[in-house]
Amino acid sequence: MMTYTNQYTTVTREALLAHVQSKMSTKRFKHVLGVEKTAIALAEKYGSSEEAASIAALIHDYAKELPMSEMKSVIETAGLNPEMLNFGSEICHGPVATELAKKDFGITSEDILNAIRYHTVGAVQMSLLEKIIFVADFIEPGRSFPGVDTARAIANQDLDEAVLFEMKHTLTYLISIEARIYPETILAYNAWVTKGKKN
Amino acid sequence: MMTYTNQYTTVTREALLAHVQSKMSTKRFKHVLGVEKTAIALAEKYGSSEEAASIAALIHDYAKELPMSEMKSVIETAGLNPEMLNFGSEICHGPVATELAKKDFGITSEDILNAIRYHTVGAVQMSLLEKIIFVADFIEPGRSFPGVDTARAIANQDLDEAVLFEMKHTLTYLISIEARIYPETILAYNAWVTKGKKN
Repeated sequence: MMTYTNQYTTVTREALLAHVQSKMSTKRFKHVLGVEKTAIALAEKYGSSEEAASIAALIHDYAKELPMSEMKSVIETAGLNPEMLNFGSEICHGPVATELAKKDFGITSEDILNAIRYHTVGAVQMSLLEKIIFVADFIEPGRSFPGVDTARAIANQDLDEAVLFEMKHTLTYLISIEARIYPETILAYNAWVTKGKKN
Repeated sequence: MMTYTNQYTTVTREALLAHVQSKMSTKRFKHVLGVEKTAIALAEKYGSSEEAASIAALIHDYAKELPMSEMKSVIETAGLNPEMLNFGSEICHGPVATELAKKDFGITSEDILNAIRYHTVGAVQMSLLEKIIFVADFIEPGRSFPGVDTARAIANQDLDEAVLFEMKHTLTYLISIEARIYPETILAYNAWVTKGKKN
C-alpha cells in the first residue's frame, strides 16, 4: 500500500479511496483500482511519480456516474467549453473530475489535473503522466476487448506507440457503432499520427 | 450522349470533356467518366437532373492534379479556409475545382458547385445532387476496394445509407493508414450518424 506524502493532495490514500468508492458502482471501483495498479507499474517503468500516478488514477472516473445536471453545473461554474455537454458523460466526466479534484482533494498539480482532464480524449501534447493514465485506463487487467493484449504488449515497449494505438482503436470503434466523435479527439489524433512518436 | 441545354454551363459537353481530359491522366479521366455514368444513373433513379449530375461529375476532379502552388493561389484569391492547405490535394481539390468551374465553365448553379465542393468530405446538410456525386465517386465501376460491392448495393437501396456507409468506410480507412483527418469530415460524420438517415 502506498502512503501519500501530501505533496499532491490534502487527503490520505485511504480517505481518497473511500471518497472515490462512495461515488461509483462496485464494478467501476474495481476498474479504478485496476487503472491505479497499471498506472503505478507504468510510472515505475517509464520513470514518473508513482504517487502522482496513483492519485490521478484513483480520481480519473470520480465524476463518471454524476448525473448530467450536476456535470452541467460544474462545467458552467468552471467556465469549461459547453460544447462537451452535447457529447454526454463520456466526454464530460474527465474535465468535471478535474474540477472536483481541486475542490474535494486539494489537488493543485497541473500535471495530475491534466492527466484526469484528458484521460478519455487525449490531447495534442501529452506529458508522461497524461500518457500513463490514458493508457492505463485502456489496458488495466479488467479490460477484455479484442486488441487489448496487443495494446498491453505495445505499452510495455513504447508508451507513445500505445497512445497512438489507443486513439486509433477508440476512433475505429466509435465509427463502427456510429457514435458521434468529439472534435477535439480528432485534433489529438491528427497530432499523434503526425508527430506523436517523437513526443 | 447527353446534349447540354446551356441552363447550367456556357460550354458544350464535348468542350467540357476536352477541357477536363487535358487536365489529368488517362486513368483519372477514365474514373471521371465512370463517376459521370454512375451519377447519371443515380440521378435517374432518385429523380435529380441528369444534366446537372453529368456536369458536376465531369468537373469534380478537375483540380486534382493541379500543383499545390496553384491550389494555394486559387484558395487565397477566393478567400477559402486556408486550413485546408495543411491537408493537401486530397482536401483542397474539391473546393478549388468549384472556383475553376465558375471561371472556366460559367457554372452558377449553387447545387452543382456544392456537389463539386463537398464530393470528398461530405457536409452536414447535403442536397440530392451532392449525395449523388459523393456516392458516385465512391462506387463508380472502376473502384475495386474491399466493401465497394456493399456500397453499390446500399446505393441502389437508400442513398442516405450509402452516404453514411461511405463516410464510415473512409474514416476507418484513413485511421488504418494513420492519415490525418480534416476536422470538417468529423462534423459531417457526426451530423450523419445523428440525423443523416432522416435527411
